[in-house]
Amino acid sequence: MAKDLPKRSENYSEWYNQIVTKADLAEHSSVRGCMVIKPYGYAIWEKMQAALDKMFKDTGHVNAYFPLFVPKSFLEKEEGHAEGFAKECAVVTHYRLKTDPDNKGKLIVDKDAKLEEELIVRPTSEAIIWNTYKGWIQSYRDLPLLINQWANVVRWEMRTRLFLRTAEFLWQEGHTAHATKEEAITEAEKMLGVYSFFVENFMALPVLQGVKTPNERFAGALETYCIEALMQDGKALQAGTSHFLGQNFAKAFDVKFSSKEGKLDYVWATSWGVSTRLMGALVMAHSDDEGLVLPPMLAPIQVVIIPIYKKEEELKMISEKVNQIKKELESKGISVKFDDNDNRSPGWKFAEYEFKGVPVRIAIGPRDMQNETVELARRDLKTKEIIKQSEVVAKVESLMKEIQDNLYNKALNFRKENTHSVDTYEDFKKAIAKGGFVYAHWDGTSETEEKIKEETKATIRCLPMPQAGIPLESKKEEGKCILSGNPSAQRVVFAMAY
Amino acid sequence: MAKDLPKRSENYSEWYNQIVTKADLAEHSSVRGCMVIKPYGYAIWEKMQAALDKMFKDTGHVNAYFPLFVPKSFLEKEEGHAEGFAKECAVVTHYRLKTDPDNKGKLIVDKDAKLEEELIVRPTSEAIIWNTYKGWIQSYRDLPLLINQWANVVRWEMRTRLFLRTAEFLWQEGHTAHATKEEAITEAEKMLGVYSFFVENFMALPVLQGVKTPNERFAGALETYCIEALMQDGKALQAGTSHFLGQNFAKAFDVKFSSKEGKLDYVWATSWGVSTRLMGALVMAHSDDEGLVLPPMLAPIQVVIIPIYKKEEELKMISEKVNQIKKELESKGISVKFDDNDNRSPGWKFAEYEFKGVPVRIAIGPRDMQNETVELARRDLKTKEIIKQSEVVAKVESLMKEIQDNLYNKALNFRKENTHSVDTYEDFKKAIAKGGFVYAHWDGTSETEEKIKEETKATIRCLPMPQAGIPLESKKEEGKCILSGNPSAQRVVFAMAY
Repeated sequence: MAKDLPKRSENYSEWYNQIVTKADLAEHSSVRGCMVIKPYGYAIWEKMQAALDKMFKDTGHVNAYFPLFVPKSFLEKEEGHAEGFAKECAVVTHYRLKTDPDNKGKLIVDKDAKLEEELIVRPTSEAIIWNTYKGWIQSYRDLPLLINQWANVVRWEMRTRLFLRTAEFLWQEGHTAHATKEEAITEAEKMLGVYSFFVENFMALPVLQGVKTPNERFAGALETYCIEALMQDGKALQAGTSHFLGQNFAKAFDVKFSSKEGKLDYVWATSWGVSTRLMGALVMAHSDDEGLVLPPMLAPIQVVIIPIYKKEEELKMISEKVNQIKKELESKGISVKFDDNDNRSPGWKFAEYEFKGVPVRIAIGPRDMQNETVELARRDLKTKEIIKQSEVVAKVESLMKEIQDNLYNKALNFRKENTHSVDTYEDFKKAIAKGGFVYAHWDGTSETEEKIKEETKATIRCLPMPQAGIPLESKKEEGKCILSGNPSAQRVVFAMAY
Repeated sequence: MAKDLPKRSENYSEWYNQIVTKADLAEHSSVRGCMVIKPYGYAIWEKMQAALDKMFKDTGHVNAYFPLFVPKSFLEKEEGHAEGFAKECAVVTHYRLKTDPDNKGKLIVDKDAKLEEELIVRPTSEAIIWNTYKGWIQSYRDLPLLINQWANVVRWEMRTRLFLRTAEFLWQEGHTAHATKEEAITEAEKMLGVYSFFVENFMALPVLQGVKTPNERFAGALETYCIEALMQDGKALQAGTSHFLGQNFAKAFDVKFSSKEGKLDYVWATSWGVSTRLMGALVMAHSDDEGLVLPPMLAPIQVVIIPIYKKEEELKMISEKVNQIKKELESKGISVKFDDNDNRSPGWKFAEYEFKGVPVRIAIGPRDMQNETVELARRDLKTKEIIKQSEVVAKVESLMKEIQDNLYNKALNFRKENTHSVDTYEDFKKAIAKGGFVYAHWDGTSETEEKIKEETKATIRCLPMPQAGIPLESKKEEGKCILSGNPSAQRVVFAMAY
């Protein structure tokens, strides 16, 4: 097995951890709960950022930057928000160290440098941003404000997993301000659509769009929209959220605007974010027992070319041809690595790039040079073929799309096979135990939701969004709650989740 | 005067503050010492980032991300480093808040959630990164490591100024590891060259390249290279630094590698960084009493087009023409804003975009439509001309380069006029009082350097780099120290500085 990777079927969790670390995506740092994102992992994140950033700008948003620290009193202002985040805050209490008089070479906190008010390392930026928006918004002419921020945030977590749950993570957070409720809701839904488009088209991962139950809402939101993806172990992963915040933050920070008609009213708000958690979803969605599998749209190296040679002279001839092919591929916007490192064998390189999920591998040796051919292998299907050198560029170009589509369709089929509809609590428990999305009737109460969670560990991933008509292929169907037997207007989606 | 801006000659400091805030670049936040970078300012920073990031990648570097927090014990490991940063550290001591039992709705620090070891919000990342590199480097095959990080850092400052000195700022920090001393020095010098190229060619600001005196070195470095620019008030601004760290951090964190010959040795290091301070330099370098002036290479909006009309019908006709011009300009890679906002008058728009430093303004009214002309104005010279619509694209294209060059040459001339060479301490004091770069002989001792600083507030900005032969147009000339009269091998550059 490549790099001693456990099989998914044996130990999915360990399989994931090892892919992340052995494919050089990330590793645990010496700081509890914080990860180091390694260059190969960061290159994927950069591609995600670039695609998302473009979509945000295309939908009229601009970037800005707000402080890392949130004064404690700001966090208190929106009650639900404060309660939601208080338990996981990193707190700055002092602003200076000094040398320890009793211990040469050691530093201690300088008690004289205690802050009057503690600063919280932002777990999210609603509080600091709405405190700022107060100065920016007076009139309807100042609206809408459509602002995004790329930033690091900290939520102290006791049990961490690389990318999926870390104390510090990278994300973007959009914070918008609107004159009307309707416009804010439209914005929140629009950004969920942007996320959905990104995850499906770049990450090759189908998602369900829906709304969260009140229990699962963002702290301070009136409505939380989400996208939910299914991982290969049958667990759901929340890939992004968009929140309709109503006037909660405007009221907490006293942000009013005068309308065209001259009336004063509180501003309507949304916020929305995706994070480096998407990296975890990407790894889990497509990878296999041989390692990472990356969709071409997000692969830092889309094609690797490996020369096979014994003599210097052979390498020289191969290199000339390869550089020509490389140049042509690059002119089509395809990223190519020619690995002519002499310290490593072709076999080592084959294994390495396979493990790192490079979508297409081209190998070329002296016999290929004679025949004007190359060996071309695709990572997703692990198929190989010999093709003419003259056909390489066209073939690779079409493979980029084929592989992207294949990964998406494979994930979609997997989801279909692992989506079930049940009508009794007994069937529900069986279905949940097998994994996947389970559509079932629910009476709409938090009590039932919590009881089901307690007994089965399954949570309601989302309720249908009336507008989108998704999930459950939109068939509106009444029934009876699987637990209470009380009437239900619509099935909701349950799953075990990350 | 536009937006009540003070003149540079009256109050340079206030002139700067008001440009930054009134041109919507940044503002002070409610968090002491931290700024909010507003969308227009952030758009400039994004252009800086994109240009620098490309140059880093073109010189073989990759990006990664390391934790925000540095355990206190890591900071202690390199003695000089610890001393240099201890006094300005934000310290995280707790990881949880709880509701105040005595004060409903308030949060207090949970004493039970005290960290065993305090975490420092990174003031710079040498410590955390070299602790990580220990796991990444075993053999010469692992070298060089050429890694950059875009991040926020915190250095607690008592007196802050937007962009120039803030508690939190954004920057990039390169951290490289090498097998030999020579390679590390070459890297440090190369990156200084990259910074110099960027500041001169994108920011249109000439710089001196040199090395710092031991007194002014980065805490933990063996040599600090710097670029120094001259602002319009005659004060110098350090625009970027690159450090040769020797084996200091490798020794502190025990990072050894086995050479080709199988010998174990400590790794050689560099680090280098530029920050949002560059935004301050950009504002101060070119702006005038009418507001911000931006070089085209970094202007978020390079061309603004303002329609002049009374009737809807006129606007419709103008818009058709403008959209055609806009499309053509954009196809040349020029960013254009067509401001047809009906809530603002043309006069208001003229003032607004002038204040915001947009390099080229095009105005077009009904008479222009008849004559097939536009009015074209450039921000740097404040000149206007009427040109044929058919010539707009070619004209604007060449203006982009002309304006960029003009700003650079203007800044270069300013520096020339404000650079003096003096031989006596009396002349030195007079020259320093007038402002600008002052070349003078120095005996090479910290004692003299400090005495001069004490008496005149002037600091040695840099010493010549032997390799580059800059500054002082490289004439090597012996003389006598202006203060002590002791022999000096070479003039050094003094100035008052930000």
